[in-house]
Amino acid sequence: MNVAFQGALGAYSEQAAEILLPNATVVPLASFDAVFEAVADGTVERGVIPIENSLFGSVHANYDLLREFPLSIVGELNLRIRHNLLAPEGTTLQAIRRVYSHPQALGQCRPYLRDRLPDAEAIAAYDTAGAARMVAAMGLADTAAIASTRAAEAYGLQILEGGIEGDTQNYTRFLVLARDAEEPPADSDRQMKTSIVYALRENVPGALFKSLGVFALRDIDLFKLESRPLPGHPGHYLFYLDLRGRRKDERIHRALDHLAELASSMKILGTYAAGVFEG
Amino acid sequence: MNVAFQGALGAYSEQAAEILLPNATVVPLASFDAVFEAVADGTVERGVIPIENSLFGSVHANYDLLREFPLSIVGELNLRIRHNLLAPEGTTLQAIRRVYSHPQALGQCRPYLRDRLPDAEAIAAYDTAGAARMVAAMGLADTAAIASTRAAEAYGLQILEGGIEGDTQNYTRFLVLARDAEEPPADSDRQMKTSIVYALRENVPGALFKSLGVFALRDIDLFKLESRPLPGHPGHYLFYLDLRGRRKDERIHRALDHLAELASSMKILGTYAAGVFEG
Repeated sequence: MNVAFQGALGAYSEQAAEILLPNATVVPLASFDAVFEAVADGTVERGVIPIENSLFGSVHANYDLLREFPLSIVGELNLRIRHNLLAPEGTTLQAIRRVYSHPQALGQCRPYLRDRLPDAEAIAAYDTAGAARMVAAMGLADTAAIASTRAAEAYGLQILEGGIEGDTQNYTRFLVLARDAEEPPADSDRQMKTSIVYALRENVPGALFKSLGVFALRDIDLFKLESRPLPGHPGHYLFYLDLRGRRKDERIHRALDHLAELASSMKILGTYAAGVFEG
Repeated sequence: MNVAFQGALGAYSEQAAEILLPNATVVPLASFDAVFEAVADGTVERGVIPIENSLFGSVHANYDLLREFPLSIVGELNLRIRHNLLAPEGTTLQAIRRVYSHPQALGQCRPYLRDRLPDAEAIAAYDTAGAARMVAAMGLADTAAIASTRAAEAYGLQILEGGIEGDTQNYTRFLVLARDAEEPPADSDRQMKTSIVYALRENVPGALFKSLGVFALRDIDLFKLESRPLPGHPGHYLFYLDLRGRRKDERIHRALDHLAELASSMKILGTYAAGVFEG
């Protein structure tokens, strides 16, 4: 099986793909669109995308692609993002004068950099894995990258220091995408989750409250609820909802039929086992 | 009046600050924390922060700072993000071989770069305004930046091409922060908005539905609703809510008192005139 992700080898998305699909071959692609296209046209069997981060919110761009492409969510992972200071073999911490990484990673490691490397310059790179690849290619004794342990392995760098991301809990939630997915059987060991996206008709007072009523009145638990202005339609909103249960469960099935009566559009994104936390 | 923002001169946050507070002196600071601290300790009278983007979601980090600092939201702006290709005077489009910008801006301009500058290398920089500053300092005939028109003015660059961000509607919502803010009077020309953040007690079935009932049963409209796992408390959720009306309105006041009965914690972030769209 092939699984596509966005980024360079050693990206956190690759780490997520390898945890989720341990025996698959990973295929790095340049953009999220390319990942969706590759799954949709059958070039790869699975895609892995980030959908939300505990510090930086939902990736609306990927929700838009989920609405657009005929794919299903078939898996989920919450990955603890741990950053490491990587440098060529033989480098010492004292010698580091430049640190490359993605701006978010540099920001999350700012307390560490301020305390331990006050003389080093932080330089933004397009992504963490790309920074590691560049630092390995340069091979300088004073230049480091902040990236994953997987990036250290991929580019032959040593880990000068691990877990430098500060005390901020930083998780990214990843989804597995597939074409023509069958709904999985109930997993007795893990909660099942169904994700939907829907829009509400304009000028319906209390429409959101009513739409949540279809779940509350059937005692269906919600994991996530988010409203977002519908792009290009002022005053209209999209709602992202994750609920406990399978699409085929009688209660869920009826609730979704009921929601379809109220919503101006609705798409069921998939049923899958609730993601474990890895860190 | 002084207004602090995060970033370099020419950042989109500076543009937002100048639209929101046209007569204030802008103060660039290195981090969001520094902006909150400067407002809280009285170094500046106002701060301007981004709180959500139409493509990349809510800035949870700033919601956390809003919960932490004793500040109020006193204003709002939805700013259309328009990107421009900037280069030193005399540069031609044909000569460009390198383009510096923030990764998100590079991504939003990817169709343009692919079509018009297929031979140019896109290089990530820490922020758009910093990229413009660097390109101006280098002064090379083959190097451009993607940034705001304000950055072009700030660093003496010419706009080789404007509005290169593709057809994606890209808005960032900015908030104005103040210490010791009085609730503004109702503005007959603009809707008033009140923002709150609250957490719900664990193991209360249908708690979210009930909490929204305090607004729905009083016919209070919601602009935004978002759930987010409470950092460090698995199974607990934070909710961000923007509602129509002023905190002092009788219905709103009663609804918030009612919500306080249900919530395990609640903070009213402020009442302000709903932000206009600029772009």
